[in-house]
Amino acid sequence: MQKLSSKPAKGTQDLLPQDMKLRNWVTKKIIEAYTSRGYTQIETPMLENLDNLTNSEGGENLRMIFKVLKRGEKLDWSKAQTENDLSDLGLRFDLTLPLSRFYANNMNELTKPFKAFQIGNVFRAERNQKGRYRQFVQCDIDTLGDSGIYAEIDLMLTVPKALYNIGFKDFVIKLNDRRILKDLVIDAGFAEEDFETVCITADKKDKIGEEGVVKELLEKGYAEETIKRFLENLTTPLEQLTTPYAEDLKLLTSIISKYYPIQFDATLVRGMGYYTGPIFEIETPKFGGAVAGGGRYDGLLNKFSKESIPAVGFSIGFERIIGILKDQNFVVPEERETYAILFAEDSFYEKALTIANEKIEQGNIASIYKIKSNRIGKEVANFKKSGYEVIVADEQ
Amino acid sequence: MQKLSSKPAKGTQDLLPQDMKLRNWVTKKIIEAYTSRGYTQIETPMLENLDNLTNSEGGENLRMIFKVLKRGEKLDWSKAQTENDLSDLGLRFDLTLPLSRFYANNMNELTKPFKAFQIGNVFRAERNQKGRYRQFVQCDIDTLGDSGIYAEIDLMLTVPKALYNIGFKDFVIKLNDRRILKDLVIDAGFAEEDFETVCITADKKDKIGEEGVVKELLEKGYAEETIKRFLENLTTPLEQLTTPYAEDLKLLTSIISKYYPIQFDATLVRGMGYYTGPIFEIETPKFGGAVAGGGRYDGLLNKFSKESIPAVGFSIGFERIIGILKDQNFVVPEERETYAILFAEDSFYEKALTIANEKIEQGNIASIYKIKSNRIGKEVANFKKSGYEVIVADEQ
Repeated sequence: MQKLSSKPAKGTQDLLPQDMKLRNWVTKKIIEAYTSRGYTQIETPMLENLDNLTNSEGGENLRMIFKVLKRGEKLDWSKAQTENDLSDLGLRFDLTLPLSRFYANNMNELTKPFKAFQIGNVFRAERNQKGRYRQFVQCDIDTLGDSGIYAEIDLMLTVPKALYNIGFKDFVIKLNDRRILKDLVIDAGFAEEDFETVCITADKKDKIGEEGVVKELLEKGYAEETIKRFLENLTTPLEQLTTPYAEDLKLLTSIISKYYPIQFDATLVRGMGYYTGPIFEIETPKFGGAVAGGGRYDGLLNKFSKESIPAVGFSIGFERIIGILKDQNFVVPEERETYAILFAEDSFYEKALTIANEKIEQGNIASIYKIKSNRIGKEVANFKKSGYEVIVADEQ
Repeated sequence: MQKLSSKPAKGTQDLLPQDMKLRNWVTKKIIEAYTSRGYTQIETPMLENLDNLTNSEGGENLRMIFKVLKRGEKLDWSKAQTENDLSDLGLRFDLTLPLSRFYANNMNELTKPFKAFQIGNVFRAERNQKGRYRQFVQCDIDTLGDSGIYAEIDLMLTVPKALYNIGFKDFVIKLNDRRILKDLVIDAGFAEEDFETVCITADKKDKIGEEGVVKELLEKGYAEETIKRFLENLTTPLEQLTTPYAEDLKLLTSIISKYYPIQFDATLVRGMGYYTGPIFEIETPKFGGAVAGGGRYDGLLNKFSKESIPAVGFSIGFERIIGILKDQNFVVPEERETYAILFAEDSFYEKALTIANEKIEQGNIASIYKIKSNRIGKEVANFKKSGYEVIVADEQ
């Protein structure tokens, strides 16, 4: 018989007990922080109607959708003109689009404002790359139906708390507002319709440096004077900004700075096109980059709902957090003793079971193993080496 | 702008906060029972290579696989001869096949025996039907690498405990052995190669009654005398069976009966073809049918591994449990108070925050809401009605 391959599908991973222990612990810390401030958990299906996915503002992600084949009579590939004739469902590539659909579908049963979080797998047909998976966990927290800055403040008290409880002490919240950024772009002399393209270049600053940004904007045909003024504008401190948008950020900063380090950064852009107001990231300088990010996206829900619903969200880079902790050889704090109750002779099984039950009732973990009587010494040593407390029932 | 449909994909469900509360509570109870006896959690990817899925012994499930379209250059539907030319991945339809692959892939890093559980979504393109979902949670617990009956005993101490802790007190474990069943079939006068087809009919007894079974076996061309003897054989009590397989079941029954009601039932068949030894189900008569089931499947891992690995598993019908609890209007026991801290005037926000932080530090849930000052009375009443403890910061 030909053996099947035992490898997981390309870009996916098998999670072993030690992986799950770490992931479960991190998840628990996140859920504790989120629920303590009244955010409630929801779940959306992993399969979405393909139309919803392809008509979203998913940007680059749209090219990485796993499409699911139509079934039975619906599938007729002899007449297929495009891929979409072959497929009607897709695997979700993020949690924001499903959340928008979820809210429109269930809004009559949900509280207003709706404070929700989702932790779940998303799927992207990424090119194979170390640390990049095709199935990975995202962890989103959102407030829907609240247009005021207090929604942002609430998120900014909640997400850093989760990171802090996980053990990330050395981080800073970076803050900007899409509308302020737009004002600074226009004030520099760019046309309003050039906002997006200017931002795409400005967003590369971390990679290509300020010189690189200047070079690229020159190549795009903009005047040197405009570019220079734009870069100067980006250094304006929050205090000197006079737009009403700056007032909200000042209030936010004055409150959050009592709890966590927070900095206004006019150079913060963030990729997604759907952001409409404040945007933010949490950076851990020691580990090079952002571990969480988000912003206000007041327009997105309009795709599903007649009403215009304000929305603001924050997302923790779950896999990035796990990666950093693994690189640090982080050890999950043990809450319970783990016992191996060994027995060699069948007549001692019930004795082993009684001992195990006692240990379990005391709140410990107790697992019974049958061993060979001539290997008792070796087995005791092996189990001890693996971190177990060991009891041999035959000897009790 | 044309609105997108806000409905979840056919056969999938949006899980609201109250749904997640129940599901999380049940999951927690299951995990507590499983981990207390030393089973550790693992996770396998939802996407599997299609070859693995289609070459498994998945029976009926093979016709319900969601297949995922090949991507980029690999997809050439003009030359496609079969569906499998269009697709190379599929969504898993159960957790047993992925577990077998997982064990073969990781066995060098896993304990022997390996006591593991998995809780995760599986996908089946079922016809639309109430209570049947196309994405649903399964909950499997397995011991790999242990051929002895103590592995079965361990599972049978663990799974009923989880059900008991969830609140199912009124259940019975039904027990049989595929090899005993085979002996009884052959002893009645059937040919060994007819075992499967006889079992398929016998398995329908719950639906069509004993008369229906006799009728169907007669239609299949078997002698009346053989059928009669077979039905008599199925009433043989465990004590009167003399095969070595019965000795194992006697030992198991003598131990488990001290903890949970357990009955030998020679008419128990269970569908899957891969079972090779003891098989079992947990039935809750009050709610009509099985809420968990499993058995020994020593051959299955051989598809992936050169070594022959003994295996035994148990699966809780997670969605069925949830369905029963919902029908009972089960209320999840609250562990924490939930506060709504309201404020109307901006100047009272920090006061509200201080109150919320105190409540959170005491282990409660506290969520801050801005309300209109002329609606304080109404809002207090609304939040109280929704089960919140309410504090108005402006009035403190």
